[in-house]
Amino acid sequence: MFDRSTLPNSVTIYEVGPRDGLQNEKFVLPTLLKVELIKRLASTGIPAIEVASFVRADLVPALADADELLLEIAPLLSTHRMSALVPNQKGLDRALKTELREIAVFASATESFSKANLNNSVADSLDIFTPVIRQARDSGLDVRGYISMCFGDPLEGKVSTKQVVDVAERLFGDGITQLSIGDTIGTATPGDVVDLLAAFDSRAIPRSLLAVHFHDTYGQALSNTLTAILEGITTVDSSIAGLGGCPFAKSATGNLATEDLVWQLHGLGISTGIDFQALLDTSAWLAEKVGINIRSKAAIALINQ
Amino acid sequence: MFDRSTLPNSVTIYEVGPRDGLQNEKFVLPTLLKVELIKRLASTGIPAIEVASFVRADLVPALADADELLLEIAPLLSTHRMSALVPNQKGLDRALKTELREIAVFASATESFSKANLNNSVADSLDIFTPVIRQARDSGLDVRGYISMCFGDPLEGKVSTKQVVDVAERLFGDGITQLSIGDTIGTATPGDVVDLLAAFDSRAIPRSLLAVHFHDTYGQALSNTLTAILEGITTVDSSIAGLGGCPFAKSATGNLATEDLVWQLHGLGISTGIDFQALLDTSAWLAEKVGINIRSKAAIALINQ
Repeated sequence: MFDRSTLPNSVTIYEVGPRDGLQNEKFVLPTLLKVELIKRLASTGIPAIEVASFVRADLVPALADADELLLEIAPLLSTHRMSALVPNQKGLDRALKTELREIAVFASATESFSKANLNNSVADSLDIFTPVIRQARDSGLDVRGYISMCFGDPLEGKVSTKQVVDVAERLFGDGITQLSIGDTIGTATPGDVVDLLAAFDSRAIPRSLLAVHFHDTYGQALSNTLTAILEGITTVDSSIAGLGGCPFAKSATGNLATEDLVWQLHGLGISTGIDFQALLDTSAWLAEKVGINIRSKAAIALINQ
Repeated sequence: MFDRSTLPNSVTIYEVGPRDGLQNEKFVLPTLLKVELIKRLASTGIPAIEVASFVRADLVPALADADELLLEIAPLLSTHRMSALVPNQKGLDRALKTELREIAVFASATESFSKANLNNSVADSLDIFTPVIRQARDSGLDVRGYISMCFGDPLEGKVSTKQVVDVAERLFGDGITQLSIGDTIGTATPGDVVDLLAAFDSRAIPRSLLAVHFHDTYGQALSNTLTAILEGITTVDSSIAGLGGCPFAKSATGNLATEDLVWQLHGLGISTGIDFQALLDTSAWLAEKVGINIRSKAAIALINQ
């Protein structure tokens, strides 16, 4: 049974295109185009946007302009929920010089990915995050945590729910204000989502503090998101135009496309605060003016009509 | 709430790639390759395949070889559930010369599409089908009905559930043995699926006689299918490699890809009788030997690994 009475009245879309999306594309978007993208996204009514990352410039050249970008969009930071990824103390120092009111930290549920992506064990990366999270909170910032590889890992295979909730508990203990559960390789199916959320219940972590972040590498992102929403999740990560390739397969598909998600939510009568036509106009701008390959099916269908 | 206890133990996948899929592609697959595709599909364990159409050769050149094809695969017709589309009495006459044990008729819920696609009003097309269905049943064949445009129509917009169930009731009255509900333009979202199935309840048409056929033009096909399965539907149409473009948008995406569906069902512990690796081998054969552009995300992710 699909019980509509358990659906929420509204869902908060957390747009990750400018950070997670652009970080995983093969091109580097010039700062001024990023600024325009963020302004356009904000004007659609999208309630939360991750705009930048304070990683080392040499490690992620696509996002090397974080400081400059945040200066450019400073006026938006007081009116919109925007965040930037902070990998360590140096990143936090940079973030604290901006008008940002929220940062994000990025942990892994698996040792393999932690070592590959963060160059540290899971435990060591959490030890790095602890003072970062605490100082950010003491400075009045919200802190979003991410956990990647929450369902499967390219080297380790299926990931136990215990691995995920152990990391989650530590991050919440350190003071994060929201946690985004990532299916980084996109292999999860709806039953896995139900199982993992149940594991969060067992640690008394309320679903209101969780977000979901599904990749569409196996075509499952929207089904998994729908499942999470039926299970009480009300914050969903997605990326305009499906920006963001998949780092673990030659597949072109990475993030769930915001347009397809909004089409579904609005179709279900769930409000998002987003002006769908303005969102499509932004997709069309990305395709026509910026030359980006759109991977949202709804946007492709509607823009081409 | 996502209530796994309401999921079925098994789902029957009805593969439409060789007919619906190839009919809507821009190329014509040679008969011998179609034969090989059908044999490969049958050997994966896919329980039902629509293999051909007895439309006029000049109208659908891609499927002009139906008679020859059915001779070539005659040995399979006694061991596998296979069907062919029959548009009228002439088509039935051709079908009755083969070893087919099932045919399909294709109706529309909307006047616009009926006139555009069938060159008849809805009522007139149903009048043509009535003797075809009756004679087929009298000849011992099963008859699958399709209704297209069950949710939206490119000219008429949202389609009322009454239009759909009126056509359905007539087709069941004439003797069809299964009905496939088609979202031909792919605009439906899960609530629409719930509403339409409720309308079938109101006419006392049991869900066991229904199948769903979702197009992925707006990225919703797998979510809608999941919703239908949660609502008691156990037969789902899909197309290997997502074969079949969309005739109503420049989008490349048409049918739900069988591989993505099987990934989800098997992930949920729902059996299909399909050997997933054999299915992927068939996708890889289509891509590498036949040169077809695969649109199944799971197949792309797994074949490229």
